Amino acid sequence: MKGIPQYRDAIESYLKDGVETGEPAGLYDPMRYILNLGGKRLRPSLVLMTAEAFGKDPDKALPAAVALEVFHNFTLVHDDIMDNAPLRRGQVTVHEKWDLPTGILSGDVMLIYAYQLFENYDSPLFRDLVQLFSKTAREVCEGQQYDMDFENREDVELEEYLLMITYKTAVLVGAATGMGGMVAGVSRERAQAAYDFGKYLGVAFQLQDDYLDTFGDPESFGKRVGGDIIENKKTCLYIEACKLGTAEQRKELQHLFSIQPGNPEAKIDAVKEIYTATGATARVREMIKEYTEKSFFYLDKMELEEQGYKALRQFGEDLMDRST
Amino acid sequence: MKGIPQYRDAIESYLKDGVETGEPAGLYDPMRYILNLGGKRLRPSLVLMTAEAFGKDPDKALPAAVALEVFHNFTLVHDDIMDNAPLRRGQVTVHEKWDLPTGILSGDVMLIYAYQLFENYDSPLFRDLVQLFSKTAREVCEGQQYDMDFENREDVELEEYLLMITYKTAVLVGAATGMGGMVAGVSRERAQAAYDFGKYLGVAFQLQDDYLDTFGDPESFGKRVGGDIIENKKTCLYIEACKLGTAEQRKELQHLFSIQPGNPEAKIDAVKEIYTATGATARVREMIKEYTEKSFFYLDKMELEEQGYKALRQFGEDLMDRST
Repeated sequence: MKGIPQYRDAIESYLKDGVETGEPAGLYDPMRYILNLGGKRLRPSLVLMTAEAFGKDPDKALPAAVALEVFHNFTLVHDDIMDNAPLRRGQVTVHEKWDLPTGILSGDVMLIYAYQLFENYDSPLFRDLVQLFSKTAREVCEGQQYDMDFENREDVELEEYLLMITYKTAVLVGAATGMGGMVAGVSRERAQAAYDFGKYLGVAFQLQDDYLDTFGDPESFGKRVGGDIIENKKTCLYIEACKLGTAEQRKELQHLFSIQPGNPEAKIDAVKEIYTATGATARVREMIKEYTEKSFFYLDKMELEEQGYKALRQFGEDLMDRST
Repeated sequence: MKGIPQYRDAIESYLKDGVETGEPAGLYDPMRYILNLGGKRLRPSLVLMTAEAFGKDPDKALPAAVALEVFHNFTLVHDDIMDNAPLRRGQVTVHEKWDLPTGILSGDVMLIYAYQLFENYDSPLFRDLVQLFSKTAREVCEGQQYDMDFENREDVELEEYLLMITYKTAVLVGAATGMGGMVAGVSRERAQAAYDFGKYLGVAFQLQDDYLDTFGDPESFGKRVGGDIIENKKTCLYIEACKLGTAEQRKELQHLFSIQPGNPEAKIDAVKEIYTATGATARVREMIKEYTEKSFFYLDKMELEEQGYKALRQFGEDLMDRST
């Protein structure tokens, strides 16, 4: 088995030389810009690793892997417009560097280009990949809409929150592992197990993201710790604290999530204290463990040889042990 | 052969009942809204008519026809944001009725949904349709970018303008007739002839649109006659007038296209006079005729039975005789 560094090299080199773009430059320069801003390339690496774990030459999975990375970057370009974000990966966002029309249109062309990358595969594989891709892409849009809807709601239940992160984040991880299986040509059952492995790993990953945003180590966490609290973002920690806490704790938390103090440190500390006092912190850590175990349950069902199994298991464990 | 009214009924009914949408409402209400604003349904009707002209039950072409209509409406939603347009078909645009994020995201989901409609077809037809669709969709984005680029350029050549309208408008008409042929299962050569018939008809259609915007009958033309002149839009009339006119006429025209008078009537009259005096008006009418004839050349190559040939020829002639 190759490793993440080799996968990443193959992906970077495809993104640099293999992505055929052309005229007009006003449309394709922004696409090249965002695709070369870096990032961990987790999703495409997972496509290659899954294909290889199933015994396939990972290079054969490269077009599908790059399609998911291009799609992921399309969502970043459009989401950054919707969120009015000035920065992405420490660099200026596309709509800030160029303008709003450029952000919309170059995003659109990236979505279409992602579809075209599947043309590297023959039927019936082409059809299987495109169908899973469309289903996934639509769910990602639905997840983004739920996320926006939830900003204006006080009564979001944990189940709804889990559905939202499943759509917005986890199904794309599921598509990565599922497509790795499809390209490797394994049975529908094994490809489905690969999909479920990725999907539940994706849920665990996002819950972990929520946890680290509040309880991460400021030294190693990439973003500012407490960012969700500053922005009054109701993550699983907030939802669970409201559910598990006393009436008084709930009232205090709702108050804290209605203010935006200039110096947020006291607010961050107060919210963290409530999260932990109510048992929400422990509950979320438990959920991360549950979803990770659920993903490993499906990893078993993929019926892999030892080497492939170990590689994917290690990938999952590293993801859960990460501090960034 | 059925006729346009029957095709339109089938399309309207599919758009009303066949388009499966669901939750979240914030994502799908805007999609339903724009799809039910009406319009001439020219592109999907052309898919059905071409399929029937090739001897196929037009209902079999309905999913492909609706895919192109959904795609066309996706471009309207995103273009209206880029153009800051308050109205579409006399009704409030999506981003005005809802907001900017809703306009972007519901547009995105429409593009994905258009792809999903091709899942109604088996391989290898599925692949042929999806490939032509992706190629077309990408060209439409490129055409939109060229159109925006040209707004800031003084030196656009006729050839560049023709490429822009070919991408922005004509290739989607070509996709309509081409897909009619694909669904009917005709040879690649006949499907290609159908594509070229539609594409050149699309170019003639857009040139005619430019002509009518300036020289149309105010009584029957749907929009305000002279709109392009008021907005200083450099259509083929402007490009040809600059090329064919004297240095003085060119200077006068450039001046007129640099001002925005409160009452534009005198400006409109002056521009129209230059268009006609330079021979640009006659040249554009000639070009419309040339492209229409070119499209009929490919109509011949489609090798149709008499009834189908007559129906498509009549469709083309009606399009060119229209006053709206």
